Amino acid sequence: MAAALAEFSDTDRGLSVSVWIAGQPPPAGVESVSLFVAGYSTTATPVADLARMPNLKVIQVLTAGVEAWLDRVPSDVVLCSGQGIHGGSTAELALAGILNHRRELSRFAASQRRGEWEKHATAGLRHCRVLVLGAGDIGDRVASAARTFDADVTVVARRARPGVHELAELPALLPDADVVVLALPNTPETTGLVDAAFLAALPDGALVVNVARGALVVTEALLSELNRQRLFAFLDVFEVEPIPAGDPLWSAPNLVITPHIGGGTTGWAQDAERLVHDQVGRFLRAEPLANVVSDGY
Amino acid sequence: MAAALAEFSDTDRGLSVSVWIAGQPPPAGVESVSLFVAGYSTTATPVADLARMPNLKVIQVLTAGVEAWLDRVPSDVVLCSGQGIHGGSTAELALAGILNHRRELSRFAASQRRGEWEKHATAGLRHCRVLVLGAGDIGDRVASAARTFDADVTVVARRARPGVHELAELPALLPDADVVVLALPNTPETTGLVDAAFLAALPDGALVVNVARGALVVTEALLSELNRQRLFAFLDVFEVEPIPAGDPLWSAPNLVITPHIGGGTTGWAQDAERLVHDQVGRFLRAEPLANVVSDGY
Repeated sequence: MAAALAEFSDTDRGLSVSVWIAGQPPPAGVESVSLFVAGYSTTATPVADLARMPNLKVIQVLTAGVEAWLDRVPSDVVLCSGQGIHGGSTAELALAGILNHRRELSRFAASQRRGEWEKHATAGLRHCRVLVLGAGDIGDRVASAARTFDADVTVVARRARPGVHELAELPALLPDADVVVLALPNTPETTGLVDAAFLAALPDGALVVNVARGALVVTEALLSELNRQRLFAFLDVFEVEPIPAGDPLWSAPNLVITPHIGGGTTGWAQDAERLVHDQVGRFLRAEPLANVVSDGY
Repeated sequence: MAAALAEFSDTDRGLSVSVWIAGQPPPAGVESVSLFVAGYSTTATPVADLARMPNLKVIQVLTAGVEAWLDRVPSDVVLCSGQGIHGGSTAELALAGILNHRRELSRFAASQRRGEWEKHATAGLRHCRVLVLGAGDIGDRVASAARTFDADVTVVARRARPGVHELAELPALLPDADVVVLALPNTPETTGLVDAAFLAALPDGALVVNVARGALVVTEALLSELNRQRLFAFLDVFEVEPIPAGDPLWSAPNLVITPHIGGGTTGWAQDAERLVHDQVGRFLRAEPLANVVSDGY
C-alpha cells in the first residue's frame, strides 16, 4: 500500500508503528491505533481520518501551537503538544531579532558593504525594558537570556502568578516597554490582542517582536504604526502565510521579516523523536503523559 | 585654565575631583591626585602625566581590556579595570553574531528586500557546539545565554578549574567546535593565539567570533580561510582599527564586520559612574578595591 511509508513492531512491548503521508489514505489497521503522532508539517488531520480510529486515546502533535487541533479532538482523546521541541529555537529567534535591532546590525552591514568604518554607540539590552507576553517555554527562555544581558524584564501571562503579571495589567505596562515579545498561544483570549489601542500605548521607537502566531496581531494596525515610522517590528509569523507577493508588509519601513522559521531548526527531529519515544513509554506504562493540552491552553 | 572641565569637592568626605580632557595639560593641583580615572576613550595616559602625580595610588580605567596600561603603571600604583561595565553589551554582541549566522538572518533580509517568502530550515543553537575562550564576565555571559538555547558549551581559559578547560587543551577541542568565541584579554599568552594551526583545526563551516581584541587573531591566516570559504567569521575587533579603506577584510567572503561596538552601548555611562562612585568609596574607607588587575591578567 503506497500510503504506508514504514511499518514495524516491537511485540515485546506490545507496540506496532505505521507511518503514512499526510493527505493520503491511512494504511490498513488504522482502526487499532491508540496513539497518533501528527507530523510537524501536518496543520491538522482531517476529522474523517480521526474518526477511523475508534481506539484512539492520544494525539501527539509536534508543533508548540495546537490551536488548529482544538476543535477536532474527540472528547475522550488527550491532545499533547510539542512544547519543548521548538521553544529554544523560537526563543533564540526572538532574541536575535531584538539584538539585531538594538545593536543596529543591518546598518553596520550596509557600512560593511560600502567598506566604511562607521562607528557609533548603539543601544543594548542593558537597562532595556523588555515586556515578555507568555510564560511558557518560549517566554521563559527569552526572559532568561534578556536578563543575562541585564535587561529589565517584565513577564505577562494569561493568569497572574508570583513574578508574572496578567494580561489585564497591560495598559499600565505597555507605556514603559522598549521591546514587547509575543510568546503566547493563539486562543480566543489572545487573537487580535495587539490592536491599535495596544500599539498606541507603546512609547515611540518601541519594538514589537512576534514569534508566536500571526493572529495575535491586527496587521493593519501594526502597518499603520510602521508606515508612520513610530514603531519597529520583527515578525516571524503572519495572519496570512506565506505573505502574498506585493503585500504591503514587504515594503513597510521599520520592519524585519523572517518566513516562520522560529521552530523546526535542523536539530529539531532528534528532539521530536525523543519526545515521542518518551511519550510512548509513558503511554505503555500507563503513566501520566507529558505536554497534555489543558482546558486553559 | 581651559584644561579643567570641572572641579568640585566634598570636604566632608575629604574628596576633591578634577576633570580634564585627554591630551591637554592636567589642571593645577594634579600633584595631589591619589585616584585617577581614565576616560573611556583614553587608550593610555602619557607616562609623563602619570609622573606628575607622585601621590598616585590607584588608576581606574573604564575599559575591560587594560593591555595598553600594563607597562605604564608605576610599581606602587594599583590598576583597576572596567570589568563589568561592558561585559553584558560585549557578550550580547557575540550572541547576536552567532544567532545571525546560525539563523541566516542576512539571507532572509535579502529575501525580504526581494519581497519573497523563502522558507527553509536553518541551524540554531540547539546541539550547536560552542567553544568559549575566556571565563571572565564576557565569556560567562556568552556561555550562559548559549546554554539557555541548549547549545553544547565548552569553556576554556588560561588556567583550568572545575568546568573550565585550559588553553593547552585547545588542539583536542577545536575539531569539535561549530562556533568559537574569543573573550580573552590580550596578553603575551593570547596574542596571535588564533593562527593558521588554530584555524586549520576547526571543522569546515565553523564560525569564529572575536569580540575581545584584534591582536588575538592572525588576520592573514583568517583571511586565507575566509577567502577559501572554508570558515565563517564575525569580527568586532581588528589588528588595525579603523580598518583602512580598501583593506582585504572589507571584501572577504563569509565575514560580518562591526566597527568595535561591543562595549560602550548607550547605557554604559551610568554603569561607569556607579563603578567609580563605589570604587572611590572603597578607597576612602581603605577597603579592598574592586577589579584590581592582577599579575595574571
